[in-house]
Amino acid sequence: MKRTTEKNLMVFSGRAYPGLAEEVAELLECGLVPQDARAFANGELYVRYEESVRGCDAFVIQSHTAPINEWIMEHLIMVDALKRASAKRITVVMPFYGYARQDKKHRGREPISARLMADLFKTAGADRLITVDLHADQIQGFFDGPVDHLMALPILTDYVKEKYGDQPLAVVSPDAGRIKVAERWSARLGGVPLAFIHKTRRTDVANEVVANRVVGDVAGKICILTDDMIDTGGTIVKAAEACVAAGAAGVIIAATHPILSDPAVDRLKNSSAIEVVVTNTLPVPADKQFDKLTTLSIAPLIARAIREVFEDGSVTSMFDGHA
Amino acid sequence: MKRTTEKNLMVFSGRAYPGLAEEVAELLECGLVPQDARAFANGELYVRYEESVRGCDAFVIQSHTAPINEWIMEHLIMVDALKRASAKRITVVMPFYGYARQDKKHRGREPISARLMADLFKTAGADRLITVDLHADQIQGFFDGPVDHLMALPILTDYVKEKYGDQPLAVVSPDAGRIKVAERWSARLGGVPLAFIHKTRRTDVANEVVANRVVGDVAGKICILTDDMIDTGGTIVKAAEACVAAGAAGVIIAATHPILSDPAVDRLKNSSAIEVVVTNTLPVPADKQFDKLTTLSIAPLIARAIREVFEDGSVTSMFDGHA
Amino acid sequence: MKRTTEKNLMVFSGRAYPGLAEEVAELLECGLVPQDARAFANGELYVRYEESVRGCDAFVIQSHTAPINEWIMEHLIMVDALKRASAKRITVVMPFYGYARQDKKHRGREPISARLMADLFKTAGADRLITVDLHADQIQGFFDGPVDHLMALPILTDYVKEKYGDQPLAVVSPDAGRIKVAERWSARLGGVPLAFIHKTRRTDVANEVVANRVVGDVAGKICILTDDMIDTGGTIVKAAEACVAAGAAGVIIAATHPILSDPAVDRLKNSSAIEVVVTNTLPVPADKQFDKLTTLSIAPLIARAIREVFEDGSVTSMFDGHA
Amino acid sequence: MKRTTEKNLMVFSGRAYPGLAEEVAELLECGLVPQDARAFANGELYVRYEESVRGCDAFVIQSHTAPINEWIMEHLIMVDALKRASAKRITVVMPFYGYARQDKKHRGREPISARLMADLFKTAGADRLITVDLHADQIQGFFDGPVDHLMALPILTDYVKEKYGDQPLAVVSPDAGRIKVAERWSARLGGVPLAFIHKTRRTDVANEVVANRVVGDVAGKICILTDDMIDTGGTIVKAAEACVAAGAAGVIIAATHPILSDPAVDRLKNSSAIEVVVTNTLPVPADKQFDKLTTLSIAPLIARAIREVFEDGSVTSMFDGHA
Amino acid sequence: MKRTTEKNLMVFSGRAYPGLAEEVAELLECGLVPQDARAFANGELYVRYEESVRGCDAFVIQSHTAPINEWIMEHLIMVDALKRASAKRITVVMPFYGYARQDKKHRGREPISARLMADLFKTAGADRLITVDLHADQIQGFFDGPVDHLMALPILTDYVKEKYGDQPLAVVSPDAGRIKVAERWSARLGGVPLAFIHKTRRTDVANEVVANRVVGDVAGKICILTDDMIDTGGTIVKAAEACVAAGAAGVIIAATHPILSDPAVDRLKNSSAIEVVVTNTLPVPADKQFDKLTTLSIAPLIARAIREVFEDGSVTSMFDGHA
Amino acid sequence: MKRTTEKNLMVFSGRAYPGLAEEVAELLECGLVPQDARAFANGELYVRYEESVRGCDAFVIQSHTAPINEWIMEHLIMVDALKRASAKRITVVMPFYGYARQDKKHRGREPISARLMADLFKTAGADRLITVDLHADQIQGFFDGPVDHLMALPILTDYVKEKYGDQPLAVVSPDAGRIKVAERWSARLGGVPLAFIHKTRRTDVANEVVANRVVGDVAGKICILTDDMIDTGGTIVKAAEACVAAGAAGVIIAATHPILSDPAVDRLKNSSAIEVVVTNTLPVPADKQFDKLTTLSIAPLIARAIREVFEDGSVTSMFDGHA
Repeated sequence: MKRTTEKNLMVFSGRAYPGLAEEVAELLECGLVPQDARAFANGELYVRYEESVRGCDAFVIQSHTAPINEWIMEHLIMVDALKRASAKRITVVMPFYGYARQDKKHRGREPISARLMADLFKTAGADRLITVDLHADQIQGFFDGPVDHLMALPILTDYVKEKYGDQPLAVVSPDAGRIKVAERWSARLGGVPLAFIHKTRRTDVANEVVANRVVGDVAGKICILTDDMIDTGGTIVKAAEACVAAGAAGVIIAATHPILSDPAVDRLKNSSAIEVVVTNTLPVPADKQFDKLTTLSIAPLIARAIREVFEDGSVTSMFDGHA
Repeated sequence: MKRTTEKNLMVFSGRAYPGLAEEVAELLECGLVPQDARAFANGELYVRYEESVRGCDAFVIQSHTAPINEWIMEHLIMVDALKRASAKRITVVMPFYGYARQDKKHRGREPISARLMADLFKTAGADRLITVDLHADQIQGFFDGPVDHLMALPILTDYVKEKYGDQPLAVVSPDAGRIKVAERWSARLGGVPLAFIHKTRRTDVANEVVANRVVGDVAGKICILTDDMIDTGGTIVKAAEACVAAGAAGVIIAATHPILSDPAVDRLKNSSAIEVVVTNTLPVPADKQFDKLTTLSIAPLIARAIREVFEDGSVTSMFDGHA
Repeated sequence: MKRTTEKNLMVFSGRAYPGLAEEVAELLECGLVPQDARAFANGELYVRYEESVRGCDAFVIQSHTAPINEWIMEHLIMVDALKRASAKRITVVMPFYGYARQDKKHRGREPISARLMADLFKTAGADRLITVDLHADQIQGFFDGPVDHLMALPILTDYVKEKYGDQPLAVVSPDAGRIKVAERWSARLGGVPLAFIHKTRRTDVANEVVANRVVGDVAGKICILTDDMIDTGGTIVKAAEACVAAGAAGVIIAATHPILSDPAVDRLKNSSAIEVVVTNTLPVPADKQFDKLTTLSIAPLIARAIREVFEDGSVTSMFDGHA
Repeated sequence: MKRTTEKNLMVFSGRAYPGLAEEVAELLECGLVPQDARAFANGELYVRYEESVRGCDAFVIQSHTAPINEWIMEHLIMVDALKRASAKRITVVMPFYGYARQDKKHRGREPISARLMADLFKTAGADRLITVDLHADQIQGFFDGPVDHLMALPILTDYVKEKYGDQPLAVVSPDAGRIKVAERWSARLGGVPLAFIHKTRRTDVANEVVANRVVGDVAGKICILTDDMIDTGGTIVKAAEACVAAGAAGVIIAATHPILSDPAVDRLKNSSAIEVVVTNTLPVPADKQFDKLTTLSIAPLIARAIREVFEDGSVTSMFDGHA
Repeated sequence: MKRTTEKNLMVFSGRAYPGLAEEVAELLECGLVPQDARAFANGELYVRYEESVRGCDAFVIQSHTAPINEWIMEHLIMVDALKRASAKRITVVMPFYGYARQDKKHRGREPISARLMADLFKTAGADRLITVDLHADQIQGFFDGPVDHLMALPILTDYVKEKYGDQPLAVVSPDAGRIKVAERWSARLGGVPLAFIHKTRRTDVANEVVANRVVGDVAGKICILTDDMIDTGGTIVKAAEACVAAGAAGVIIAATHPILSDPAVDRLKNSSAIEVVVTNTLPVPADKQFDKLTTLSIAPLIARAIREVFEDGSVTSMFDGHA
Repeated sequence: MKRTTEKNLMVFSGRAYPGLAEEVAELLECGLVPQDARAFANGELYVRYEESVRGCDAFVIQSHTAPINEWIMEHLIMVDALKRASAKRITVVMPFYGYARQDKKHRGREPISARLMADLFKTAGADRLITVDLHADQIQGFFDGPVDHLMALPILTDYVKEKYGDQPLAVVSPDAGRIKVAERWSARLGGVPLAFIHKTRRTDVANEVVANRVVGDVAGKICILTDDMIDTGGTIVKAAEACVAAGAAGVIIAATHPILSDPAVDRLKNSSAIEVVVTNTLPVPADKQFDKLTTLSIAPLIARAIREVFEDGSVTSMFDGHA
């Protein structure tokens, strides 16, 4: 008995940030698969899909936002349910990769939680990952399978170039270890100058930072302070002040992932930055929005990546070979 | 270069319920290993052990209480850190096994989260499990390795026998599917009569329970209503009322795991039960304690099991061969 | 070089019970794949497929009947041969899951053979399982992959309802631990009363059962004694006598799996049961058939499940969501 | 809490051939671990150890004799029970490796059952294997772990040299593919001449053997016909006749594994061989014994290997580096 | 969103012997996938595919020729890159299986490198293997997945039969352990006589071969000396001399794999062999070619096998069931 | 039969750089295990240990120097042989981690060879790794097991401080992406100023670097140019020139791993650097040594780490908690 094989795209969403998944599904012109997802009285999570998923090519979107452990667990359970319900292929879509910062042992006897996450998803049944702007590119190598690593950079740089491109710009890294990201920004903005913030530590008191010093020339320029994520905003806001102190004509803060843990919003609002530009890889609830904040949608990027993956197209070509 | 091999017992505790782990460690006459455990601003968890754990025989205790997903994730991360820090053997101690109730697909397209948990801990690096009174014995088979399945039954029955043994007793199962547990109670109480609550469902409306009917004779007897856990308490409190309605002389509720999700405490307080007896496999915080509640410590049982495991003794012999 | 992908259903049968596989293949309108299967002089088993199986969607049916270890080994070897011959996907069909009763450690230092079986089939190359009425639903969780768990319940209850539905019925569980099955029967028969047999044990002599007592009211009713399997028939036949003693108007024994080990046939023949209803998940050879025995075919259920799996349909929908 | 680590040797025996295991245990001056092993009515096997095995260094001996699938399954189940009962290390001792002859695909779409066996034991929990005279040395590579491959050759050649060493000898391989074994015999017997039996096949009829021709000179010599096993004895008995026809002064048949499937005993009894020498890697029950049959015990070899493994000695040195 | 599934054949070549891969690709009427492959200054290898390989059915051809470790590593890295770039299925094509001769422990404390290779390729991401004339058929069982084991025998025997078929032939094995190959030759040449070379070893000096003696009758015949590979040519050239000394009318050397390590070419050139016939599973560079050497192309065989694998045809049928 | 368990340290060395292993073994006061290691004529590698390794705690040292693929393969084969010879625990010691630079996909369709290496060693049988100054700390997370990541930093900084500490210093990173290393240097040298080299790229021609510009103030200072490795030396020598151009009083080049591929030696000799300081994680053969080159031994660090691992001490404490 022979049949032509068909593949069937189905998009699933966890409960952390349904808005993003809906936007993606709309762009793909398919709905989200209806489901019954909830927590029991003691907090144990439950999910059940309300239509057959047998043989489907599943894309499971969840935002690793607060309460992050709960949403990661829901993500894992969704994958388990898909595996046992005979989905053919399961792609985990995590626009922000939770625990990415614990990507190595900074000191002895620490976990490497970013590797642990990769293994947990593999164990649950994930065949592949789609994620955006990893904290370190090496995290791709933590997952035992294909990882499509998308870059929000073009979205952010296009916006900045459009709005500020006619002024003298400089790209500034808030931390010595992240200059590579700033270099990519510099390249996409046409080779504008580069600087970074060097934290001078006191030699008599361990770990106490005395001062943030801008290394590089930013005087009279609009500084684009770039990072992959804004968590509490402490580092980047201090970096903004350092830029101003060094004579910057203005400061724009740009980052892919708006974690915005307390007191990030207050800090950013009150900072000397003119504008804060992020994407919506993580939800920015109404109470975290403020005037200077611009949120660019990541949904078109994710939708296009899903389509390429589903149709055996090319994700690499979306980034001129750089992914 | 030759050395005599030594083994070194080390006990670790997650932050969910340090009191229990401290009690266990005290009984073992060893301290808990000091650690730096905390959550970052966005909720990501972190742990670091403050002394060398290289080559140790590690027992990692965590209570799967609310917020349960957070504590399970911490448990996993603790195991990962131990594995990478060269612990020789890692035994995960979960007095209450989280997600044990999702031990099968009740309907199609559900997860089997209890199996998923077993696989997640295996992946993180667990070599073995110690747990108490699993919701279903089959869960032992979910873990790919040795499981020491402890029974709180003797602790509970000894207490009940001591206090109520001179009165006519009956053991009642609140649910047809859990009569086996009641049978064990009956045997340990010297063969007292057995009954169960049968939920009559309406045939015209799906899933609506019309009435709880006691099957078996309880008139004039003190009914011991037994279960493995009390979550919201709905089922067991209704069962208590059914016993009273059937002429019971009194009702004692006994269960191993005091989940006590809202509104369990209110229900139990206001129920017709004389006494509610549980163990402390899960913490019962001060605001959940009430007069009728008796909490028996599970720590001696766990401590003894750890000692037997460490010293290559016998856990089975702790239960006359029944574990 | 591009090709449209085709999938190709192929059905294979071990030698334990070719009749069932042939019936299934006929319903699917495809033949069984011809093979050379035999035992060598020392009992080692051998199989070779006589046509190409490359790229096929293989369903391998074997009945785990006596000599059960031989047939399970043949089942494993068939899977190995398919894997090495490049079958695309291998579904193991075991209408009766061998060793299902050893699904937990009843006492310390026992195997969990039901989990072992799941792992052995996975190791041999099984991608998925189809099975019927597992001894415990949790066994689904023993296999690391999708399990389609079929229910014979509707086949059995439809037959009983049709034949005895106009008489007063009661559903009786022969064992306290299996009341859940009886509850499902009760529901499908329209909410008829429920009872169970309680084995009273002597308190002075270990493990000696004094008496079987019916808990629940069966007087004047036709009792449907239900279980998942009949092995030697001891328990269920004693349960039948207990029902009669309690005033039952008649007893029907109904079970999915007719293991019928000696002396089951004699016991059933001579029992007070009016009729014994089973399916043919296991073969009932001519010398085990007797007047009161009715065998309903499970082949249509299996054939339909295979078709749904092959065509990416829904198995869950075959059971109104309950599988 | 620190302890000096102790290791504890425990020897287990399946029910296939307890005599051999008892002999081994006696040589090791330790008893066999008492167990409850039996088959249930439907043939499912069961085992339970009657004393604690926690932390032990387990050696599990089973003879893969008829009914071979049953005994292999018991072997697997014994390993599973040990794994779950916390044995520290599990060494599977299979004096004869079942299914060793299916060590490759002789034709397309066959299993490679010898690899499957290795994987099944690994899955059940075996850490290492001890076996004797594999049908092909490559089978060592099938197991993912250490294999101690013992050689019965010295036992057999010492016996033959002692008894027949003063006569002119020739070593004859009954099959072209097994001349390597004959070469080893020749070397240990001091370089005696070598011959082999060439099966001439008819060219007009497929697979029909016309004649067995001795290639090499055996006239006037005592021929030692060597093989790893004697199954039905057909090949080796025909080889004996060919030797006699070629002028041999006498024929000795020597093999490690006495499978002796029907009609091996009749064939050997009635053959022109003077003596048949085997070891007891497989049991030779009373009804299979006959005058010309000499059985040498393999137990000392196995006992010594177990001792070396347990004490971190050297198995290789038992064979002058050749194992 | 549904799509008909397409499969897409893509052929990749390592840098060891691009000529063979090009010939295969031409026969398949598809090009090789363009790539950037090279070594960095310190010898680390690098590969990048220059077009999308997402979803393809990849066949990765590499010749395990000198420098063999480098080419094997490149082969592994190519597989890793394909896996991470989302190839759907990866078939490793190794016409000559490197390290095949280390297929067992000849002595204690050796590796089994042939098994190690199988595991390394599996780990890198290989789903299946295609290889030609394995040194031992058992190596098929080293890989955990399907192995298509092709035979060059028909190519070689057809050539020999065509050219020498009208003369009296004998097939001679240069080593006792490889007579099976000679038997297959004999069968395909119509049952010509068989002989083998027996190495007589000195009994007083270990491992010193005194003489090569032909066992079997070769006088007046053209001897076809067969082996799976020619490495340094020592054994086979000595065997040729032994044949001549035994009265052979001429000697043809035939082997699948022309390793031709120094001083093979000199030895063969100067040997008494009339012709040396090999295939091009390994490259024979210009400086290794000599007059008597005939190289038959293996490309048609590999191309046909790839086509059968891609189209779910039958590889077994290419060899009348013998593969 | 009980025995006290002993552990036995054994150190093994590949053939890439025996000098380092010998130095380590001497410091540990144990010899290297004698072995027979060599290449066959076609380049296949072989190793056999000449004494029993059963039950040992094995440390296998190999330098991943040129020909790097050969030495990595030898490393893998050594591990395989140890695993099969029953070593108890296998620690792979790779002072320089080969392929560390391919730790992510720089562009699409590349391998992640650093992860592949980790998996290959795991597959071969490695339980744990010891390595020095990884190119990226995240590589620790590539290995599925414990990694002891040693730091050569103190060795290098102590030397520099001792020799140049009385002069004004600056630490310069030759690449924006590696400033973190320079920061650690700065901290250990007491907080000396930091700078980095920014490569300005032409905007009209892709990837063409126009100029190296020093970002930060180095005028009048001795610049310590730091990196983890020196391969061809191009980047670091250009960086030295840039420092000089920016007014540096002198340049010291310091790196852990002296790969020194051509033309590194010429470049370094002819550069403006006063001194080049490296360790011997890789061998520096006589023809690569030059006047300005100082090689500090890494052997004491490795020996101490092995001792701590063997004795269940602490490696973390060797680095004040930072490893």
